[in-house]
Amino acid sequence: MMKSRLVIFTIQQSYMAIRIFITGGTFDKEYNELNGQLFFKDTHISDLLEMGRSKVAVEIRTLMMVDSLEMTDEDRQLIAYQCEQCDETQIVITHGTDTMTDTALILEQKIRNKTIVLTGAMIPIKFGSSDGLFNLGSALAFAQTLAPGVYVAMNGRYFHANNVRKNKQTGMFEEIK
Amino acid sequence: MMKSRLVIFTIQQSYMAIRIFITGGTFDKEYNELNGQLFFKDTHISDLLEMGRSKVAVEIRTLMMVDSLEMTDEDRQLIAYQCEQCDETQIVITHGTDTMTDTALILEQKIRNKTIVLTGAMIPIKFGSSDGLFNLGSALAFAQTLAPGVYVAMNGRYFHANNVRKNKQTGMFEEIK
Amino acid sequence: MMKSRLVIFTIQQSYMAIRIFITGGTFDKEYNELNGQLFFKDTHISDLLEMGRSKVAVEIRTLMMVDSLEMTDEDRQLIAYQCEQCDETQIVITHGTDTMTDTALILEQKIRNKTIVLTGAMIPIKFGSSDGLFNLGSALAFAQTLAPGVYVAMNGRYFHANNVRKNKQTGMFEEIK
Amino acid sequence: MMKSRLVIFTIQQSYMAIRIFITGGTFDKEYNELNGQLFFKDTHISDLLEMGRSKVAVEIRTLMMVDSLEMTDEDRQLIAYQCEQCDETQIVITHGTDTMTDTALILEQKIRNKTIVLTGAMIPIKFGSSDGLFNLGSALAFAQTLAPGVYVAMNGRYFHANNVRKNKQTGMFEEIK
Repeated sequence: MMKSRLVIFTIQQSYMAIRIFITGGTFDKEYNELNGQLFFKDTHISDLLEMGRSKVAVEIRTLMMVDSLEMTDEDRQLIAYQCEQCDETQIVITHGTDTMTDTALILEQKIRNKTIVLTGAMIPIKFGSSDGLFNLGSALAFAQTLAPGVYVAMNGRYFHANNVRKNKQTGMFEEIK
Repeated sequence: MMKSRLVIFTIQQSYMAIRIFITGGTFDKEYNELNGQLFFKDTHISDLLEMGRSKVAVEIRTLMMVDSLEMTDEDRQLIAYQCEQCDETQIVITHGTDTMTDTALILEQKIRNKTIVLTGAMIPIKFGSSDGLFNLGSALAFAQTLAPGVYVAMNGRYFHANNVRKNKQTGMFEEIK
Repeated sequence: MMKSRLVIFTIQQSYMAIRIFITGGTFDKEYNELNGQLFFKDTHISDLLEMGRSKVAVEIRTLMMVDSLEMTDEDRQLIAYQCEQCDETQIVITHGTDTMTDTALILEQKIRNKTIVLTGAMIPIKFGSSDGLFNLGSALAFAQTLAPGVYVAMNGRYFHANNVRKNKQTGMFEEIK
Repeated sequence: MMKSRLVIFTIQQSYMAIRIFITGGTFDKEYNELNGQLFFKDTHISDLLEMGRSKVAVEIRTLMMVDSLEMTDEDRQLIAYQCEQCDETQIVITHGTDTMTDTALILEQKIRNKTIVLTGAMIPIKFGSSDGLFNLGSALAFAQTLAPGVYVAMNGRYFHANNVRKNKQTGMFEEIK
């Protein structure tokens, strides 16, 4: 069994890209200088991967561009469907932090045999001091190394989908128990 | 055996910080505006951890502040000694990229039962477009998840110490074979 | 006459600082990472002056911290009063762009013998790509060189208070006629 | 005479762009991530004008891309020749700070009836904390408002070409007497 695991591992490293699904969230918000509102235009994921000099093979797909407080059940079904259908077994999802753990729980119930890592940002990437680049670096690393399952990667750590909450006072993610 | 591994894992997660050793490198270079030269002052690791909203428990220690092209055998012996002596079993080392793989090989020969991840940056952190924050995020993640051994974490990927080189034409890290 | 002008000039250069009044506006907005709203905390004017390596003698005073769409008549009376009372004859006011020209008109009616330059930013300074540093550099320069009067300094240009409007489609300032 | 001056002023504002000559200097230096050296590629002046949302009409021309410590007499003759020949009467020159005052003195001797403003940066624009955007904002403003002559615009101030030096201890520009 140990041997077969190594074989699978080698295949993943060599032939299989990491799938990145974009859903919006603070991560990709921009400042509209005409009305002073934050809004979505395009994802900045490619800029971040370039800045990080990333050579990880990735397949990027934008599923939606929404504030996670406005994410519907249908949106979450779509995300789950896409995770299930895609060929890749390592998946990173960029997601608003407010309901990231809700989506993680749904994916945990539905998806088997894939390593899914949700991440996001507390500060938009377009701002000077965003945590987005740090989070993306850690999410891609966790996606390459963690066993199949659904995880939240924030604050430099990873959390199992069924044991994580966002502390609304501190903005930090933490274990429930 | 699987059970005992899980026990160890739980202990690490709960009680043990990640040790971060600073050795200098492009990562921490600054621009001296009086003479136009790059130089070292202090490490920026704390600023990066703050920007990344990191809640990973870490113990930071600056071992040296050198350009890795000027790192001596004695410097590498000191790094190895510190890795061996410290209580922590998960270690991240910030290091210049030019000789990062040399130091990794020496650590590989000397250190057992610890997960050591070397990382650095192609662009100084003080510059606007550094890869340092991305690399630190991935290095901390790899340190938490990879089995004991010595690794280089660059370009979003991890490499085993005995199978990695820096491609001098592209600046990217790659497997030797 | 030329001689007396030179005398006045010398006095201003040597003994008199430029007064900077802070009123808020996009310039000083920050991103609240807990609720995703933009808000005011402290002004960033000192950070900008430091980044610009400014050696212009300045006296900074925060009068208010408001979105200029919420600026009241009383607020504008206060600004005018402060401009009138202060010792300095060269004044820079940071101000939200939406009603900057309204405040300029009121100052134009009330203040004599002072060079008053209003400026602001289309993008908060805390964001990576703000125009605030550029605008502050030009506003300080205009305050040092323009004849007494009230001006708006935006988009690298200066406008007389009675002949400027913000084009709401483009976000750019332009002459009315 | 006052009337004719106003006429000239109106023409400049309406029809005549500011000429920007690029000569290199710290302003435009970049970090070569393969060898860790600073080098010149392209000028960043257009990026800065865009970031500043500048609507000043400008004509940009790169004359050279050199460290000002390596600028030759021939280089300075070329700059003077270009200042003389160009149609514009308002000129901004980006220039390394180390010998900026030398070039200013030569232009002062050769050019009449034009407002020439030399500026630069202590920190490369590509770095996060450059003074370049601030300096460009002030230089463009000074070029629009100062009487014909040759000036250095640094540290938020302007200096006459024949009364300015760079203080090598502080990196700041100051009057000689």
